[in-house]
Amino acid sequence: MVGHPFDLATELSYESGTFRGQTSEAYANMVGPYGGITAATMLRAVLDHPDRIGAPLSLTVNFTAPIKDGEFFIKAKPARTNRSTQHWVLELFQGQDTLCTGTAVTALRRETWSDIEASFPRVPEPEKIASLPTENLPLPKWVSRYDIKVIKGFPDPLAKEPKENIDSVTLQWVKDKPDRPLDFLSLTSICDAFFPRVYIRKNEISPASTVSLTIYYHAEEKELDAVGHEPLLGEAKGIRYYNGFFDHFAKIWSRDGNLLATTTQVVYYKD
Amino acid sequence: MVGHPFDLATELSYESGTFRGQTSEAYANMVGPYGGITAATMLRAVLDHPDRIGAPLSLTVNFTAPIKDGEFFIKAKPARTNRSTQHWVLELFQGQDTLCTGTAVTALRRETWSDIEASFPRVPEPEKIASLPTENLPLPKWVSRYDIKVIKGFPDPLAKEPKENIDSVTLQWVKDKPDRPLDFLSLTSICDAFFPRVYIRKNEISPASTVSLTIYYHAEEKELDAVGHEPLLGEAKGIRYYNGFFDHFAKIWSRDGNLLATTTQVVYYKD
Repeated sequence: MVGHPFDLATELSYESGTFRGQTSEAYANMVGPYGGITAATMLRAVLDHPDRIGAPLSLTVNFTAPIKDGEFFIKAKPARTNRSTQHWVLELFQGQDTLCTGTAVTALRRETWSDIEASFPRVPEPEKIASLPTENLPLPKWVSRYDIKVIKGFPDPLAKEPKENIDSVTLQWVKDKPDRPLDFLSLTSICDAFFPRVYIRKNEISPASTVSLTIYYHAEEKELDAVGHEPLLGEAKGIRYYNGFFDHFAKIWSRDGNLLATTTQVVYYKD
Repeated sequence: MVGHPFDLATELSYESGTFRGQTSEAYANMVGPYGGITAATMLRAVLDHPDRIGAPLSLTVNFTAPIKDGEFFIKAKPARTNRSTQHWVLELFQGQDTLCTGTAVTALRRETWSDIEASFPRVPEPEKIASLPTENLPLPKWVSRYDIKVIKGFPDPLAKEPKENIDSVTLQWVKDKPDRPLDFLSLTSICDAFFPRVYIRKNEISPASTVSLTIYYHAEEKELDAVGHEPLLGEAKGIRYYNGFFDHFAKIWSRDGNLLATTTQVVYYKD
């Protein structure tokens, strides 16, 4: 049986404190791998680490330079282990080059008063939205590894005057292609599955790449298991674009209104 | 001339790759120092580093365990230097104990199309709002180092039924006390100057502490200089509270509507 491309792309072997992985053509971006698959692979080093306790609570990955095709290495070091939290320091490298830095926190949860203060957006069911036709668009390869159904907020380079949109809000249904049951790794990758906000604001495709990505996980394994193969709703909005860098804030919802993760990123862009 | 308590609290000496600092009673929290002053001190290690290029673009600080009163050390390592970005790996420690992990990115900006997509909230002028009377409330010491004028969203433990608020939105004017001209360090500290969202939602004071804090800087030095001693507007909202951890998203505005920073944090809380 052949594994899912996602599992192959994030596969790591572990030897004496260092994980070894291999870039995957299936998740290639315009230059180097798709950031979401890299973030998921960094998290996998944490989850596969023999000393790990708890489930993901937060992850920050900084993309320092493009990863070259081929093998790479990840160091995941538990810097501090408390009763309910564990702090991780992460580095991805090829030879002498640090290509990602990062930190993560894993945690043991216990039942408390809980609430989702954010509002689940009113959206049409995924069955009513067409999938992005990845075959006929000049999109990087990783996009074909997702079934993306954009409800609102997709860049339209052919837009007429006024070309610029008043906001960059995107709402989209997303799931792995082919289907794969949701877990923390695929959730991580889906957190980055948004086109750069500046594309949507300006209806123009221009150089843009994520510099730093942060994810807060708001779910336990049983809730991800409950999602199974259902699509997730991604909701993203740009906040400020300023002299070469912008940020966005995004939420990842289950179809039935559970907020599984929140995520922010700061992105380099060029006019 | 005696220095400002903020400058004394964030003061570092540098010797052979390691910075040495000292906790400050003036910025004490309930246990250990106020997280904002620690984050600012971590950033100061980057800014004071002889190899640093560019201004702050992003900062993530993970609080692994309380810092004890006394001296502490910070390692700030430039893991990668590109043309326009520099990636930093940060660690704060006392003896063998890692008490904060972190990463930062500094960057050189160049003029591009820019826009603030977030909306500046309608708020009364700071002159019309009373300052928090820090002297008569059981608040930690750091609160007295800020002039905080809460427009909306302050915990009221005496609230009657229904005790719980429907949201945790806070709007507050904040500045250093005594006055100090704004810079990247004080902006960093102000990013953490919000009471835990769970206090506001539940109108109850209960154990809560920041686990991880991320800041994206959206301003250049000249814009911070232009703020001078004017108060900043802090706007924060909780997103999800779930089994022991919640997150919030916040914006820090200048009085004239410039978005200086966005910041998220994930916070441990107990019922």
